[in-house]
Amino acid sequence: MTTIEDLKTTYRDLTMLMSALALMGWDQRTYMPDEGANHRAEAFGFIHSDFFKRATSDEVGNMISDLKSPETYGSLSFVEKSMVDKADREYRRAKAIPPELMHRYSVLSTKCEKIWETARKRDDYEMFKPHFKELLSIVKEMTRHYGYEDNPYDALVDNYEPGMTAAKIKAIIYPLRDHLVPLVEDLSRRSKDSGEISMNGHYPANLQKKLFLNVLEVMGFDFSRGRIDETAHPFTTSIGPGDIRISTKYLEHDFTIGLFGTMHECGHGMYEMGYDDEHVYTPVYGPASLGIHESQSLMFENHIGRSLPFLTYFYPKIQEIFPRRLSDISLHDFYRAVNTVRPSLIRIDADEVTYNLHIIIRFELEDAMINDRLEVDDLPAAWNEKYKQYLGIEPPSDADGVLQDVHWSSGMIGYFPTYMLGTLYSAQFYAKAMEDLPNLEEKMTDGDIQPLVDWLREKIHKPGAIYKPEELIERVTGSKPDSKYFIDYITRKFSDLYR
Amino acid sequence: MTTIEDLKTTYRDLTMLMSALALMGWDQRTYMPDEGANHRAEAFGFIHSDFFKRATSDEVGNMISDLKSPETYGSLSFVEKSMVDKADREYRRAKAIPPELMHRYSVLSTKCEKIWETARKRDDYEMFKPHFKELLSIVKEMTRHYGYEDNPYDALVDNYEPGMTAAKIKAIIYPLRDHLVPLVEDLSRRSKDSGEISMNGHYPANLQKKLFLNVLEVMGFDFSRGRIDETAHPFTTSIGPGDIRISTKYLEHDFTIGLFGTMHECGHGMYEMGYDDEHVYTPVYGPASLGIHESQSLMFENHIGRSLPFLTYFYPKIQEIFPRRLSDISLHDFYRAVNTVRPSLIRIDADEVTYNLHIIIRFELEDAMINDRLEVDDLPAAWNEKYKQYLGIEPPSDADGVLQDVHWSSGMIGYFPTYMLGTLYSAQFYAKAMEDLPNLEEKMTDGDIQPLVDWLREKIHKPGAIYKPEELIERVTGSKPDSKYFIDYITRKFSDLYR
Repeated sequence: MTTIEDLKTTYRDLTMLMSALALMGWDQRTYMPDEGANHRAEAFGFIHSDFFKRATSDEVGNMISDLKSPETYGSLSFVEKSMVDKADREYRRAKAIPPELMHRYSVLSTKCEKIWETARKRDDYEMFKPHFKELLSIVKEMTRHYGYEDNPYDALVDNYEPGMTAAKIKAIIYPLRDHLVPLVEDLSRRSKDSGEISMNGHYPANLQKKLFLNVLEVMGFDFSRGRIDETAHPFTTSIGPGDIRISTKYLEHDFTIGLFGTMHECGHGMYEMGYDDEHVYTPVYGPASLGIHESQSLMFENHIGRSLPFLTYFYPKIQEIFPRRLSDISLHDFYRAVNTVRPSLIRIDADEVTYNLHIIIRFELEDAMINDRLEVDDLPAAWNEKYKQYLGIEPPSDADGVLQDVHWSSGMIGYFPTYMLGTLYSAQFYAKAMEDLPNLEEKMTDGDIQPLVDWLREKIHKPGAIYKPEELIERVTGSKPDSKYFIDYITRKFSDLYR
Repeated sequence: MTTIEDLKTTYRDLTMLMSALALMGWDQRTYMPDEGANHRAEAFGFIHSDFFKRATSDEVGNMISDLKSPETYGSLSFVEKSMVDKADREYRRAKAIPPELMHRYSVLSTKCEKIWETARKRDDYEMFKPHFKELLSIVKEMTRHYGYEDNPYDALVDNYEPGMTAAKIKAIIYPLRDHLVPLVEDLSRRSKDSGEISMNGHYPANLQKKLFLNVLEVMGFDFSRGRIDETAHPFTTSIGPGDIRISTKYLEHDFTIGLFGTMHECGHGMYEMGYDDEHVYTPVYGPASLGIHESQSLMFENHIGRSLPFLTYFYPKIQEIFPRRLSDISLHDFYRAVNTVRPSLIRIDADEVTYNLHIIIRFELEDAMINDRLEVDDLPAAWNEKYKQYLGIEPPSDADGVLQDVHWSSGMIGYFPTYMLGTLYSAQFYAKAMEDLPNLEEKMTDGDIQPLVDWLREKIHKPGAIYKPEELIERVTGSKPDSKYFIDYITRKFSDLYR
C-alpha cells in the first residue's frame, strides 16, 4: 500500500539530483573556467535526464494515483494533500509533452537563445525571426498537450504561476494599465521639472562589496546559510537547505544598480531560507510561485530598500563608504535619484512606476501571438507601437526593443506576467504588514527591519508551496490579488516624493 | 556482442556522476556555507551510491568478462586493452568488499576521523585508540577480501599504486633510508653552521595572490582550463576535461608556504590538464597512480620551484612584490632559506631531504600493524622510537607525533608510500629530462620552462593511465623505479648549497 512516506522518499531522492544540478548551474555562472563549458553541458544533461526519468517513471505515476484515490487522499492531512497535489501537477506536466516534442523544444530553444545573443548584438531581427517562428510553433503545439480551457496561454502561465490564467491577468492589469499611462505622464513631467540627479562617478568594486555585505547584514541575510558572489546576470539559487546563494555585480560607474540588485536577490534568498524545516525535501518545500518569489525580492528592493524610512537609516552608511562623491548629495536627493520616474526603453532599467507597462506590453504581445492574432513577422512593429502608446517613446532599434529580453528566445512564454504579479503581491503584502505592525516604518528608520522579516517568514516564507499563490494571498491579506494596493502604494509614494 | 564502445559508454556515464561528486567536493572545501554541510553530505551520499550501484552492476561485470574473453581481448588495440584492464581492476576492487563490511568501514572511518580531530587538539591518544583499533581490524578484514600473495599490505597499497607491493617498497627504501640517516645528520649540521635565515614577516594576502597568479602563469597553468581558490587544506581536483581546479592558502606571516604549495598543486593540475583528449571519458583518462601524480607536483614544487635556476629568474619578481621585507635578502640566502635541511617533527613541514624519513617511518609502522607485529597500544612508543632513531628527535606530544596525520584516522593505510614514490619518480624523470633537454636549466634561468612542460606532457601526462606506474617509468626513463636518482639529486643539490 502506498503511503505519503513513499512520496517523501521519492522527493528526497529527486531533491538530491536537483541539488547537484543547482550547484552545477551556480558554478557555471560564477567560477567555472571557460573551457569547462562543454563538459559541464554534458554532465548537466546526464544528471538532468536521470532526474527526468525518475520523476516521470510509472512507479511515481502509480504512487501518485494511489495517493489520489479518494480513500487514501481523504485520510491525509491538509499539508499532505498539498504535497500530493503538487507532485501530481508536476508529474502530469512532465508527462504531458511527448519526448520527441520535448527534445525538439530543448534543441531549438538552446539554439534560438544562442542566435538571439548574436542577433541582439547585431540589431538583426531578421536573423532571429525564422528560429523564433519555429520555436513559437513548438510552444503552441505544447499548449495542446498541456491542455487548457479558454486560452492556450493558460497552459503556459500555469507553469510559473499555478492557477493563473490570461483572463485573470487581464482582469488585474486592465485597470492598472489605464491608471499607469496617465500617471507615468504626470510623474515623469514632475520628475523632470524637479531636476535630474546623476549618481555617476567612480565607485571601486571592493568598496561596493563592503557596502553590499553591510546591507545584507542589516536585512538579515544569514551568511552561515548562504553566500553572495559576483556574476554577469545576478540570480539566486538554492543548493539545498542551509545553502542559499545570491549574486550581484559591481559596476564601477554606478553602485546603485548593484546595491538595489543585491537587495532584490536578498529578498529571493530570504524566501528560500525561510521554508519550514518540517517539510524539507517534500514537494511543498519551495516557492508558492514565481510571482510570490518576485514579491519577496521586490519587498526587499523596493518596499524596504528604496523607501525613505530605510534610506534615512542606511544612506549615511553609504556616504561613509563613498564620502567624496556623496558628501554633497543629501538624503532627499539620493532618495529622488533612486526613484526617478522616466519612461525608458529597457525593462530591467525601469523604475517602479513604468516597470509594469513594460510587462503589460509583453503580456499583450504574447497573448496575441499564442492566439494567432499576431505574426512573428509583425512583432517588431507591434512592439514599437505599444511602446509609443503606453510609454510615449519608440525604440530606435530592435536591439533596444523587441530583442532586449532573453525569455522569448529560450521559449519562456508566459513568464513575464510573474514579474508584474510580484509587484502587485508585494504591495498587497506590504499594506497588510503595515496594518499588522503599526511601528514598521518607524523601526525601519532605525535600521530595524526584523519585525517585517519575522512577519514575512511566518506568513509567507514558512508555508512554502502549501498554498497556491492566490490562496496564500487571500489567507495572508484577506483579499484576492488586486492591483489597487500597488496603485495606492505608488500614488502615495510618488506624490509624497514630488510634493 | 559486447564491444569496446559499450565500455566507453558506461565510463562516460560514470564520469558524469563522478564530475558532480568532484564539484560537490570542491565546493565543500572552498565556498559552501557552514550550514550547507548536512545537506551536502546527503546529496553527495545519494549520488555516490548511485555511482557505486552502476559501477558494480552485473551488467558492467558481464561487459568486462566479455571483453576479457581471449577472442575479444585479442582483437583489441594496446590502449583498448589498457582500458579493459583498468576497468576490470576497478570493478573487482569495488566488488571485493561485501556491502555490509564496506558500510561498517564508511561509518567507522567517518567517525574515527572526527574523533581524531578532537584527539589531536587535546593531545589525547587514549581517546583515539579504541576507534582506530576497531578501524584497523576492519581494514585487516578488507585485505582478506581484496586478496594478496605475500603480505596483506599489498592489497592496500595496490589501490593507490597499482602493481606496488610491500616487498618492492622495502627494496626501494632500505638503501634510501640507510643513505638518508647519515646525510640528514651531516646536512642539518652544515645548515645550522651556515646560519638560519628566517622568512617571517608580514605579507598581505592580496599581494601573495598576485604573486601566486604570476608563478602559475610562468609555469604554464592555463586559466581558461582551470582556476585557483583559497582553502584551509590545499588540494587539486578535476571537475572534468577543461575544468581543473587547484587551491592554496595565504599565511600572512610567511608567503613561502603558500608559494611552494601553489607550485605543488600546479604540478598536480598540469598532470590533470595533460591527458590525451583522444581518451576522454575512458578508464585511461586519469593518473597512472598517486605516486606518478605526486611526481608531477614535486617536479613543479621542487625540481623547478626550489631550484637555483628557476629562482634566479623568479626571485627578483618576488622581491618586487615584497620590496621592503626582501630587499636585504639575496637570491642565495632565499635559495638557502627555502631549502633548509633540518630534522623536524611534522611531515608536511619537512624539507626534501628529511621528508622521506617521515614516510619510511609511517610505512614501517603500517606494515608492522597490518602484519600483527605491532599493537595499536604500542604505536606511540614505536613512533617516538623511530623518530629518535631516524631523525634524532623525539616528539614532545602525540599531537605532534603519532596523531599528526589524518590518513590513519580515515582508514587510509597504504597511502603514505605514494608520497615517497613521488619524490623518487620525480627525480628519475627529471634526470631523464636533463639528458633529453641539455639546455633545460639554462632556459629555466630565463623563466622558460616550456621545454620541460612539453616533455612532461608528451612523456607522462598524455598517456594518462595507459601504463601502470612501473611500466610508465621504465618506458620514459629506460630503468625501473630506483631511489638512486633521488639520492644523486639531493646529494648534488645540497652539497652545492653548502659548498
